[in-house]
Amino acid sequence: MIRRRGLMLVLSSPSGAGKTSIARALLKQDSQLTMSVSATTRRRRPGEVEGKDYFFMDEAAFKTKINQRYFLEYAEVFDHHYGTPAEVVGKTLEGGHDVLFDIDWQGTQQIKARARQDLVSIFVLPPSTAELERRLLTRAQDTAEVVARRMAKAADEMSHYPEYDYVIINHDLAQSVAAVQTILDAERLRIERQQGLSDFVKQLRDASSN
Amino acid sequence: MIRRRGLMLVLSSPSGAGKTSIARALLKQDSQLTMSVSATTRRRRPGEVEGKDYFFMDEAAFKTKINQRYFLEYAEVFDHHYGTPAEVVGKTLEGGHDVLFDIDWQGTQQIKARARQDLVSIFVLPPSTAELERRLLTRAQDTAEVVARRMAKAADEMSHYPEYDYVIINHDLAQSVAAVQTILDAERLRIERQQGLSDFVKQLRDASSN
Repeated sequence: MIRRRGLMLVLSSPSGAGKTSIARALLKQDSQLTMSVSATTRRRRPGEVEGKDYFFMDEAAFKTKINQRYFLEYAEVFDHHYGTPAEVVGKTLEGGHDVLFDIDWQGTQQIKARARQDLVSIFVLPPSTAELERRLLTRAQDTAEVVARRMAKAADEMSHYPEYDYVIINHDLAQSVAAVQTILDAERLRIERQQGLSDFVKQLRDASSN
Repeated sequence: MIRRRGLMLVLSSPSGAGKTSIARALLKQDSQLTMSVSATTRRRRPGEVEGKDYFFMDEAAFKTKINQRYFLEYAEVFDHHYGTPAEVVGKTLEGGHDVLFDIDWQGTQQIKARARQDLVSIFVLPPSTAELERRLLTRAQDTAEVVARRMAKAADEMSHYPEYDYVIINHDLAQSVAAVQTILDAERLRIERQQGLSDFVKQLRDASSN
């Protein structure tokens, strides 16, 4: 019997390129795909569920776990830590399901260094400079300083696109979702993700050398 | 402007796994895909067209071209030479079209050594030992010796499946064609096949750091 090993799908993009909408649509249409659940040191908000939205822990526990290589990747955002528990992801992959990550180039590099074989990385680009500017400037309540910071961050993030396996230019949401789904379906057919092939081929070879 | 660089799609399989039917269906449905045209030292048969079915040449010319590294891959089959002109394939790829190869593991290894980046390789397996035996034994006019040789060759070919990027188990022709098409569509989105990305991203970055 051939059993599939799951993969880790990373979507990265500059702010406003449409990554979040793509991720949401994928999770809705693909039952084999689940969103990665992060550990975090920030306070739990009303309605958030431990183990579903986040794994909540304090700063000391988080730092201990960093040293134990508990996290596949981790980062600090606005004074809080966020990290992906490696063991949780590993069990999902072993169970034949795929895990979706919405992380930046630094998180992607950390996963690449640790589990290259399970990683499929896609960089999503906005369709044009005009569209990117429109999206970056769009929230009227932001201060000039916030907008400037967001723009600088987008420029920095985009400089890392060559580190990814695939690039999608997001002209149209439905087309981009279909493109990511196609990549996902193809990557599932990669030889390293089909477990039990070696026994299956041995049977075939025995049958043809009788 | 983003221009796509074509890729080389190799389908290999043991005799009778259904590879030829898959290739035929793909060529029919995908206008960006063309069949590779080989050079050969065998005689031209009635109706065969130079440059369309084969490039015909004599043994001496073929050997000179081997030494000039003219062939991407070549092989000897029943005392005749067959080889793929590298330059013809290179021009097709540059033009943004993909080239389909129906070659064995040895040809695949030769292409891999020379042009890994352009290669996408798929191994097609029969669905079961029973089906493989049925297919190998099916041509009633074959002598026992021919059948035995074909079986040994199938067993040998199958031992090389781990050298391929993807494996498809051919349970159903239509499903297998769809799977190869999915792989083709996904591989076309790989970063190294999209030319002009670097200029495009530079424009986006300039726009967001203004």
